[in-house]
Formats: sequence, C-alpha cells, structure tokens
Amino acid sequence: MSGEDAPAQQQNAEEQKNQETKKPAEEPKAETKPDSPPASAATEAAAAPAAAEKAPEEEAFTYRSLVLTGYGGYDKVKLQVKKGKPALKAGEVMVRVKMCGLNFADLMARQGLYDRLPSPPVTPGMECSGIIEAVGEEVTDRKVGDKVLALSRSGMWQEVVVVPTTHTFIMPEGMSFEEAAALPVNYITAYMMLFDFGHLRPNQSVLVHMAAGGVGIAATQMCRTVKDVTVFGTASASKHEVITEGGVTHAIDYRTKDYVEEVRKISPKGLDIVLDPLGGSDTHKGYNLLKPMGKLISYGAANMLSGQKKNLIAVAKTWYHQFSVHSLSLIQGNRSVCGFHLGYLDTETELIAQAMDSILGLYRQGKVKPRIDSTFHLEQVGDAMRKMQERNNIGKIVLTTEPMKEEEKKEEAKKDDKKDDKKKDDKKKDDKKKEEGKKEEKKKEEGKKEEKKEEKKEEKKEEKKEEKKEEKKEEKKEEAKKAEN
Amino acid sequence: MSGEDAPAQQQNAEEQKNQETKKPAEEPKAETKPDSPPASAATEAAAAPAAAEKAPEEEAFTYRSLVLTGYGGYDKVKLQVKKGKPALKAGEVMVRVKMCGLNFADLMARQGLYDRLPSPPVTPGMECSGIIEAVGEEVTDRKVGDKVLALSRSGMWQEVVVVPTTHTFIMPEGMSFEEAAALPVNYITAYMMLFDFGHLRPNQSVLVHMAAGGVGIAATQMCRTVKDVTVFGTASASKHEVITEGGVTHAIDYRTKDYVEEVRKISPKGLDIVLDPLGGSDTHKGYNLLKPMGKLISYGAANMLSGQKKNLIAVAKTWYHQFSVHSLSLIQGNRSVCGFHLGYLDTETELIAQAMDSILGLYRQGKVKPRIDSTFHLEQVGDAMRKMQERNNIGKIVLTTEPMKEEEKKEEAKKDDKKDDKKKDDKKKDDKKKEEGKKEEKKKEEGKKEEKKEEKKEEKKEEKKEEKKEEKKEEKKEEAKKAEN
Repeated sequence: MSGEDAPAQQQNAEEQKNQETKKPAEEPKAETKPDSPPASAATEAAAAPAAAEKAPEEEAFTYRSLVLTGYGGYDKVKLQVKKGKPALKAGEVMVRVKMCGLNFADLMARQGLYDRLPSPPVTPGMECSGIIEAVGEEVTDRKVGDKVLALSRSGMWQEVVVVPTTHTFIMPEGMSFEEAAALPVNYITAYMMLFDFGHLRPNQSVLVHMAAGGVGIAATQMCRTVKDVTVFGTASASKHEVITEGGVTHAIDYRTKDYVEEVRKISPKGLDIVLDPLGGSDTHKGYNLLKPMGKLISYGAANMLSGQKKNLIAVAKTWYHQFSVHSLSLIQGNRSVCGFHLGYLDTETELIAQAMDSILGLYRQGKVKPRIDSTFHLEQVGDAMRKMQERNNIGKIVLTTEPMKEEEKKEEAKKDDKKDDKKKDDKKKDDKKKEEGKKEEKKKEEGKKEEKKEEKKEEKKEEKKEEKKEEKKEEKKEEAKKAEN
Repeated sequence: MSGEDAPAQQQNAEEQKNQETKKPAEEPKAETKPDSPPASAATEAAAAPAAAEKAPEEEAFTYRSLVLTGYGGYDKVKLQVKKGKPALKAGEVMVRVKMCGLNFADLMARQGLYDRLPSPPVTPGMECSGIIEAVGEEVTDRKVGDKVLALSRSGMWQEVVVVPTTHTFIMPEGMSFEEAAALPVNYITAYMMLFDFGHLRPNQSVLVHMAAGGVGIAATQMCRTVKDVTVFGTASASKHEVITEGGVTHAIDYRTKDYVEEVRKISPKGLDIVLDPLGGSDTHKGYNLLKPMGKLISYGAANMLSGQKKNLIAVAKTWYHQFSVHSLSLIQGNRSVCGFHLGYLDTETELIAQAMDSILGLYRQGKVKPRIDSTFHLEQVGDAMRKMQERNNIGKIVLTTEPMKEEEKKEEAKKDDKKDDKKKDDKKKDDKKKEEGKKEEKKKEEGKKEEKKEEKKEEKKEEKKEEKKEEKKEEKKEEAKKAEN
C-alpha cells in the first residue's frame, strides 16, 4: 500500500463513519479527524506545522490510524483518518507501515492499566514493520525503500509512523512483514530475560507460562538455542500439541492441574528460571519453585486482566497478592528476583540494539521464527484484542494496514448483526469470570508466608470496600438484565 | 607438621592450660579435651568409635582444634586438643591441615549471628588447605599425599579434618598453602555473584564495597578478566594505592565521602552491578544506583557487626533498614535483586565444583591470585579476628597450623601484659562506635521510599525498646568505668 491510496481510504473511512451513526458495532470505524495533528510516534509533543503553512500536496496527505479514545472495552480503539504529512526531524525516518504487532501491554493500556501509554486520545502499538518512505536530515544508515521493523513506546498502529532511525532495524532477507511485526517486543523480552537476567545455560530448567502466547513461543525457541534445556510450558490442553512441537518439554494444562505439583513431580528440586507474566499469587509460587541460584523473572501482571473492561477485583487481588521479598530471604535462598518490561526500557537504545542484533542473527540461522496466529485488518482490531485477551491464540496476532476488500466488509456487516448477541454473551462471560475469580482467589491463600501481615490487613480492608462496591454494581446489572429478558 | 608432632603439642597445650588459670588472656589456650569426640568436619553427627574399641595407636592420635565455646567476644574461640583418630566413611578423605581461611561469616558466627554454624561447642571455619593423609572406601580420585584445598560448612579450623572428597580440590602447581586456604570462599563468592547472577559483560560498571577485603579483592580480579569493566571500590584512604594497583578504577574513601555521590559524579546513569556485603540502608543505596537491567547482589550484613560482641543496636538497625522490594517496582525499573551466601549453598556440590574449576583455570592463567594480608598461628586467632573486624587487613587473613616457636610464645606473653590495657581500649572503642553508629543512623533516613510504613512503625517500637535497654546498660558501664578511674 502506497501513499496514493490514502484518499480512497479516507473515502472508505467516511462511508464507515456514516454507517457507524446507525449502528454502533465493536469494530472501530474510521473517523476523519482533520484537526488532529499528524502523529509522530516517537515525538508525541512535536507540534505539527500549521495547516496554512503546508504545501497543497502535504495538505492532501492522509493516513488511517487506530486511536484509543478513552479507557474501556474493545470499542474504545477507533479507526480514524489523520491528515497532514508528519514532520521529520533530524535522525528520524518515516515508515509506510505494513503490519503491526499486538501485545499484552496494549490490552492493559486500553483498560488504563499501563502507565507508559500517554493519555487518550492516543495511538497505541509498540511495534510494526514496513518500508521507509522518507528520511530526515543526518540519516545515513537508512534509505527510502528499506524494509524495516520498528519499535516504539506507542503510536505504531497506523499506516504511517515517524521514528528515530535507532528504533528501526533492517529486516533480514526472507523475513515476511508479518514476522517482522511479530518479532521485536516478544523476542527482545524473551532474549533479555533468559540471557541477561536469567543467564540460561545447558542442562537448566525453565518455566514458561502462557507458552502458546507471543513471549511464550519466543522464550521456548530461545531455550532451544541452548543445549539440553528443559522447558515446562503452561497452556490449555488444546494447545499442547503445537507447543510441544515448538520445543516445550513438559506441557501443563494449568486449567485442570496444579502446575506447581506437576513441576515438582518431574523436577523435585525445582527450577533454574521462572518467567512470570502473571503476577499476584503466581509470583509467590514461582519464587518457591526456584532452586538455589534460581532466578524469578517477573514481566507482567496478566492476572489483572479479567474481562474486557478494568476489573477492580482482579486488579485489587493482583495487588494484594503482589510479591515482595526481603534481601535476607534472597541471601538464605541464594535466589534472584528480576523485573522486566520493555516499555520502561525505551530509552536504552544501545541495549535494545544489542539484543536485536543477536535475535536477527538467530533468525538468519533459522533458530528462531515468529509463529503468526492470525492477521486482522485495522478495522478488526476489536476482534484481534478479544482473541488475545481470551487466550484463543497460538502465537502472535498481527494487524495489517491492507484495507478490507468490499466483499469482506459485507461479510463483516452480516457478522455485525450477530454482534449484539455476542456482546450479551460477553457480558455474561465476564460476570461469570468475576464470580469464578472470586471463588478461586478465596482458595488461593498460599504464597503468603511473607511477613507484613499488618500491611496486608490494611490492603484487605480497602480491597473489601472495592469488592462491595463492585458486587453492588454487579447485582444492579444482573437485575437490569433480568428485567430485559 | 606431621602426625608425630601431636603428643608434643598436647604437652605444650597442657602447659598453656596451667598458665591460663593464672592469667586469662585473649588468645585461646590449648585445652585437652580427652572426652570430646574426634571432629568430623562434614559429619558433625558421626559418632566416634568407643575408646575401648580403639587400637592403641588410634588412642594416641591427637590434634589441635579451635573451638567456639559460646557466643561472644574474641576469647570465645579456644584452642583445644582433640583425641582419637576421626572415623572415615566411604567417599571421605582425611586432610592434615596446613592453613585455614578467615571469613566474615566466622565473625558473625562467633556473635551468634550466623545460623549455618551448629551450636557451640563447635569448630568454626569454612575453608582450609593441606595434604591428604587417609582416604575412605570408594575414593578413587584422591590419594594420600595429594595437596588439596577444602571447603565445608564448618569445622575447618583444626589440624585434621575429614570431608567428602567432593569438597576437596587438587591444588594447582605453584599454588602455596596460604593461597589455597585463601581462595575457596572468597573466589567462589565473587565468581558466582559476578558471572552467574551478575552476568558481567564488557564495558559494564561494578561497585565493590570493602574492596580491600577478601571478597573485594577477588571480585576486583574477576572484573579484570572481562574487557573494559569499570570498578568502583570503597575502602579507607590508606588502602587506595593497593586496591588501585589491584584493578579498582575509582577508589572511594567511604569514611570521608558519600559513595553514592562519588559514583554519580563519574557515572551519572548509575551502575550495572552492585555487590553489597553491608546490608541495611546500604542495600537501598545500592538499589537506587542501578541502571536499567542492573543487578544488586546482596551477600551479607556486615553492618550488623559493630564491636566484638553482638551489638543489639547495630543488629536492630540493620534489620530495620533491611531492604525489601515489590515485583512491580522491579518491573518498572528493569532491575534484578539477588541474594548470595555460600554457607547456604553447601549441598550444591556440582554448582560449586563448576565454579571452582573455572576459578582454578583462571589461577593457572595467572588472571586471579589471592592476596594474603597476614598469617596467624592458631593460638592467635583472637588477634586475627580482631584485625578483620576492625578492617585493618588488605586481602586475606589466614591461620597456620604450624605451632608457635618458643621464642614467639615468650614475645606473645610480653604482649599479654599489655592486653588488659588493650581490652579496656577495646571497650572504649566499642562504646564510642555504638554512639557514633547511633548518631549516624539517625541521619540515614534515605532509601526508605519503600511502602510498608505501618510495618516499619511496628519494628521501630521494638527497636526503640531495645535501644533504651542498651542505653541504660551503657550508662551503667560508663559510670562503672568512671568509678574505676
């Protein structure tokens, strides 16, 4: 897709907008935002040149962009059309985006749980692939036409992005745009966790949660680059075949089995490395599974995500169970606890470049290769996010900037009729999950051998208050629903 | 020294015992303990064969041993003579000890602050060097006459030790017994911290506290095996020349300067690795000095040691300021916090063997070489411990099992006359230190940005109670002293 297509896109988008007024659907519909400044992904604050100063051709420059309009459900991410050519500063490049990667942080961000995304309205997205369309002054190592993958704190979910050249990496030969968009966040995360913090060596053992997710698959592949590493991977049973083929030694169905017990059965002494994307009580479990000289690497709080909107109970529970450790406990156990999140590492261009060099090297040697679960159009970002949140993916979910074909749109419109029912189902599912979550959490009182009982009591009081509020709300909702039926 | 010397030693020891009744001195005097079971360092519980069953030659087998008789000051470690040949189990070897290493844990243990030493009476000591005198059944990789260095949880400060063969390592050619006794604990500690937890790489920066101590010098040498590593080393000014020659890039006098400021001046972004043997508020400072992807490695609580006897205020202060961290804080900082102590790793023979192999390899290549500060006779263990505790050493302090010559003893006896005065001085010094410590700690209120204020208040109350008790005690002592003068 080239710049010339843009006006047509805008037209399509406007059509969509007209539709939108009739029937609000989950997928974001493109909205023209002629007054919104052109987005410069890396320089949020960069003021756009006033429209009056622009040359006519720049004036006509438009591109579609996904915009988070406020915190909430999947429908808060809307497709809009931005107008005006983004300004290029020295050292920056403009990329015509082909594919964008979806990450857990994007889901957290939509619910207002990720502080590295600027306040809405803002374009989310931490990674993309595409072709360089323009280079700023002082750029010597990139040229127009270069195929690159790009990484940024936010702003990657749109057709055109502007980033410092240091945030782009030349795609190796043979790499698809899907792979290039799927690679940066997951593989840098897996690489830095396992090889910098983890110092993974032959014969060691690693626990990989959500082993069928983007980081899970990347981590499993990274483990396979080291001799005789045993990988314990959690995933629902239906994904076991795929993750086992991908390199997981022992697949564990966390929905039907206690993964701590399963690990102990096979490895009574415990593990060398635990990668923990879950947070809350799972961090305690991971810590207790460590061997001497073992490393727990915490890189998320996926347990906070329950349902499409912010679930205060899930958030409070995750906080309540949040892991903390004293240095003397670490000394007596000869253990290490690490925290990792690429979103807080965005200024460390050198560290990231080093990791990326190694990863691209492994890709060229055929040792790692992103697994694409599915590709969605920008218009379908809601479905894409839903699939990830409900953990129905095996591998990476990517968004393509390729516009939907007319016949696809008609298909989608038909589906939309079923959407209202689906939404109701979702609501029920969410409520059910909350209920289940509550019951489950009551059972989970392990991992609290840590001191600070006083502190916890305090937290508990606050949490209970929130819980009560939430329960009241839910009761009201339930009543409202019953009244409808 | 061979087995034949033992009876002579016993005689000398008995002479000393007679002297002891007249004038209690700081140095431990040998005491015959005919009823005490022969010490088997590795198997504390191994029952000695009943004397009646012993062959006459075994009956005559005696050896000198340092024994911690109770928790307290330097005089709690006494030289005794043990009788009866230690029993050798399958897989064990008996070593005729030449030299023993002194470690910080030994000082902590004497004060009752180290839970890995069995209760007194017990022979302390975690490392020694010597010659294999007998091998048990099933030992194929060691033979009588092998020069070895040995490592154990305790029991190494005596002329004869029995350890599993896996706890011994053949001394490389050219290594002296002093070096061999100085190497195990300090170099394994430095190696595992820097290369396993720390994953030290070229161009990184490391903070080494107590850079003139045993671990400090070992860590500095290890850093020098990696290209372009910057070492910040703290030590009092008089030691700067030596540690700079040894590889410290920036020597910092922690007594006159704020090391945090000094580090920031040179490395505003902070450090990649902080090795923290101090504990308390220094752990917080170290954590705050970390760069993204930085690692804090805590391996002791030397701040607890103040004066020769357990100082409840210092202990409480160190506990009060003890570092604890939440996983979300680690995630947002991309940081790692590790704890290391070899004493809790004694069953991990494979890990230790791997580290030792690498270290002995580095020794053979001339890349690491223990620096011996001084050698003391077993009789002088009190002086040795004092030197270490007062941080007057540069490098390792070792004990030799070589008996003191008659003229040396006479010299010592003369010194003893001055000992009573010295003791009084010590008392004054200790009291002064406590006072200074109190004042200093009041100033140190940084690093407490951690949550858990509730908890801290609780701790504070308890601490204050102890402080008051301690103050009252001290006041009484002060008065008593004034009355004497």
